[in-house]
Amino acid sequence: MSGMSGMSGMSGLWTQEAERIFADIARLSSDPEVGITRESYGEGESKAIDYLSHYARSCGLQVHSDAAGNVIFQRECDSGEPALWCGSHLDSVPQGGNYDGLAGVVSGLLCLRRLDEEQVRTARPFRVLGLRGEESAWFGKSYIGSRAVIGGLKAADLQLANRFNKKSLGDCMRAVGADIEAIEQQEWLIDRTQFAGYLEVHIEQAESLENKQQPVGVVPGIRGNLRHNHVCCRGEDGHSGAVSREDRHDSVFAFSEWVACIDRMWADWVAQGRDLVATVGTLNTNAAHHAVSRIPGEVHFSLELRSLHQQTLDDFYAAIQLARQEIEQTRGVRFEFDTRIDTAEAAMHEPWVEHLVDIARDHDCQGLLIPSGAGHDAAIFANQGIPCAMLFIRNQHGSHNPHEAMRISDFVIATDILYQAAQELTL
Amino acid sequence: MSGMSGMSGMSGLWTQEAERIFADIARLSSDPEVGITRESYGEGESKAIDYLSHYARSCGLQVHSDAAGNVIFQRECDSGEPALWCGSHLDSVPQGGNYDGLAGVVSGLLCLRRLDEEQVRTARPFRVLGLRGEESAWFGKSYIGSRAVIGGLKAADLQLANRFNKKSLGDCMRAVGADIEAIEQQEWLIDRTQFAGYLEVHIEQAESLENKQQPVGVVPGIRGNLRHNHVCCRGEDGHSGAVSREDRHDSVFAFSEWVACIDRMWADWVAQGRDLVATVGTLNTNAAHHAVSRIPGEVHFSLELRSLHQQTLDDFYAAIQLARQEIEQTRGVRFEFDTRIDTAEAAMHEPWVEHLVDIARDHDCQGLLIPSGAGHDAAIFANQGIPCAMLFIRNQHGSHNPHEAMRISDFVIATDILYQAAQELTL
Repeated sequence: MSGMSGMSGMSGLWTQEAERIFADIARLSSDPEVGITRESYGEGESKAIDYLSHYARSCGLQVHSDAAGNVIFQRECDSGEPALWCGSHLDSVPQGGNYDGLAGVVSGLLCLRRLDEEQVRTARPFRVLGLRGEESAWFGKSYIGSRAVIGGLKAADLQLANRFNKKSLGDCMRAVGADIEAIEQQEWLIDRTQFAGYLEVHIEQAESLENKQQPVGVVPGIRGNLRHNHVCCRGEDGHSGAVSREDRHDSVFAFSEWVACIDRMWADWVAQGRDLVATVGTLNTNAAHHAVSRIPGEVHFSLELRSLHQQTLDDFYAAIQLARQEIEQTRGVRFEFDTRIDTAEAAMHEPWVEHLVDIARDHDCQGLLIPSGAGHDAAIFANQGIPCAMLFIRNQHGSHNPHEAMRISDFVIATDILYQAAQELTL
Repeated sequence: MSGMSGMSGMSGLWTQEAERIFADIARLSSDPEVGITRESYGEGESKAIDYLSHYARSCGLQVHSDAAGNVIFQRECDSGEPALWCGSHLDSVPQGGNYDGLAGVVSGLLCLRRLDEEQVRTARPFRVLGLRGEESAWFGKSYIGSRAVIGGLKAADLQLANRFNKKSLGDCMRAVGADIEAIEQQEWLIDRTQFAGYLEVHIEQAESLENKQQPVGVVPGIRGNLRHNHVCCRGEDGHSGAVSREDRHDSVFAFSEWVACIDRMWADWVAQGRDLVATVGTLNTNAAHHAVSRIPGEVHFSLELRSLHQQTLDDFYAAIQLARQEIEQTRGVRFEFDTRIDTAEAAMHEPWVEHLVDIARDHDCQGLLIPSGAGHDAAIFANQGIPCAMLFIRNQHGSHNPHEAMRISDFVIATDILYQAAQELTL
């Protein structure tokens, strides 16, 4: 592996390195059917960590794990003083894309390597954090790795089951070498004072940068969300042809009425200028006994609301619950909800947001502010009072799907900005 | 087994025999989780046939199979001339009840036994037909056994796969000894002229007899139906938090809008006095990659309409397709439909309907006319021009569910009426 030191234009080498790393990890974690699958606290995620650890060591960098199985990359000359961290996650949704999460870790690692090879002395140590378990698709809980770092994972969370293999989170964490006893203490796994700040580079999970023809954007804040991973509407099974309309307690018609109602209310609220998205991502009748000719007695689904404002979430939630109660009374059905999970919205550190905009402009970008609709590990650290900032990289085909896209030239611009930020951001 | 001959009051013995038969077959076909499971052309159905065959032989009756694996019970003295048949089916929906289908076969068999033991000479031979494969829950096609009898099963039908074990219908039929080559000829498996008439006793699949406090009712006609076993609404996957409302192609919101629209139109049509029911019995997003935080790019479901009038089915179908097209245009999604399957409505033989009403009144019933919302094998024979009639037995808890109920005292009244009809119905 050729060194990067002494090169004035890094773009060519970063392009080559990044292309190789992304291609290698895509091969290691390609889904048998389509796209990329790096399950949280599972095989694809571990393979990515192993690959990057090997890469970092071959570049003369140090590799550590924290007690939650997250990976830490740092320079040999790291003073051990409070650091500026740069992180993102290494898992993906099932059959997702290659860049969601991974791009940020690779970007940080390439910067770390260059700082080291160019023997740059930074005001604070620069460290890279490769987090596990960011995607909620696996255990119904997001940001598992970063929550564990701040002591925010509860004993009950460790009982959550992987939706596919049914193994508990605790067992999966233990299998990758995590220290469950330490996690259960609910104390910081890395000393709180070690976090002088946290940066995250991430692909945008929508296409606003693409629409505005900008390679990167700067994130001013991250939407919070409110989730029920599992709602069940219970009515009554019956023969489809024989039970008259007025005697029915049809769970699918009740579900459809409620979701159509949520949809109309959502349109109204957006028209009034409220920031809001609503999603029913999973949906099924009971495959053990549903049938074309049977009135469905139960339907199961998930419900998620997101907004930049907690008040909007609370207000909309209250409004749709009222509508739900009416449907229950009219149709003789009932909706059962699992625990409501709230993830707070998070503001980025304003001076850093401004500074990143300036650096972006130095790199011939407009420095557009792009609020994050999706959640990120950065929100976890920001809500602990740690100064945070994020850069988005343009993505042509949305996110959480196999067609997610990122141009390496855009990645290199973001990494150039990050490299400068690692040296310039101050507190 | 004690004989029934010479007894003036049969109710006590029929009660005892019926209770034992129903309990034994329930044991043989109980689902490991809940209810009764007798899969079409599968294990539970075959066990019921084996049990009843053994029972019939022990009563001195003859047992035959037709080339589709249906079972035929007849008296040793059967002249071989065109007969009055009495039949129903021996399969159930998954996790259904014990009486849907089975009650009619047992009722016919108890009558046959009594006719034989009492050496009653009927104008035409009385034969009992235990049909397989009536429920569409397994192969997505209903009345498989009776369709085969009339030569109405197509080669393509034999390729249909069991929804659970994925085996083809042809293979499952062969496994129970059916003659696939004979079925593929699409000719009557039992000579057409053998069918002088067909009677069927069946539990009501709704609660109108229960509401009217009547043990039995007489069926004037059977609703036809129109089905799509599989419809797929395709939109576009995306990150739930990041894609704004206007950029979404959300399959679940599109589905919900359409189904809520179908529901409102259905209410309107019923209010206008049209006979109609609509059902979405199966429903799921793609479990391989759906997630709480992912915009669902596809949702799969079934659609079924039923009416006593074909014109109503055609009109309503056209109306909801118009609504569907609007939704496709507004939301940028598309609905994909598998082949539309139509099952014609069927009228019962009017003189027999009247005669059954009279006999019912002889047995202290009101002789209520209860149209059948659900389809029955009788519809297959009726639509071949064979005179048919049906009796419904009161059922307390609907149908196609584990709580389906029938009082043995009601069953005995229906069997009493059937016994008289077997001797009195003429052409």
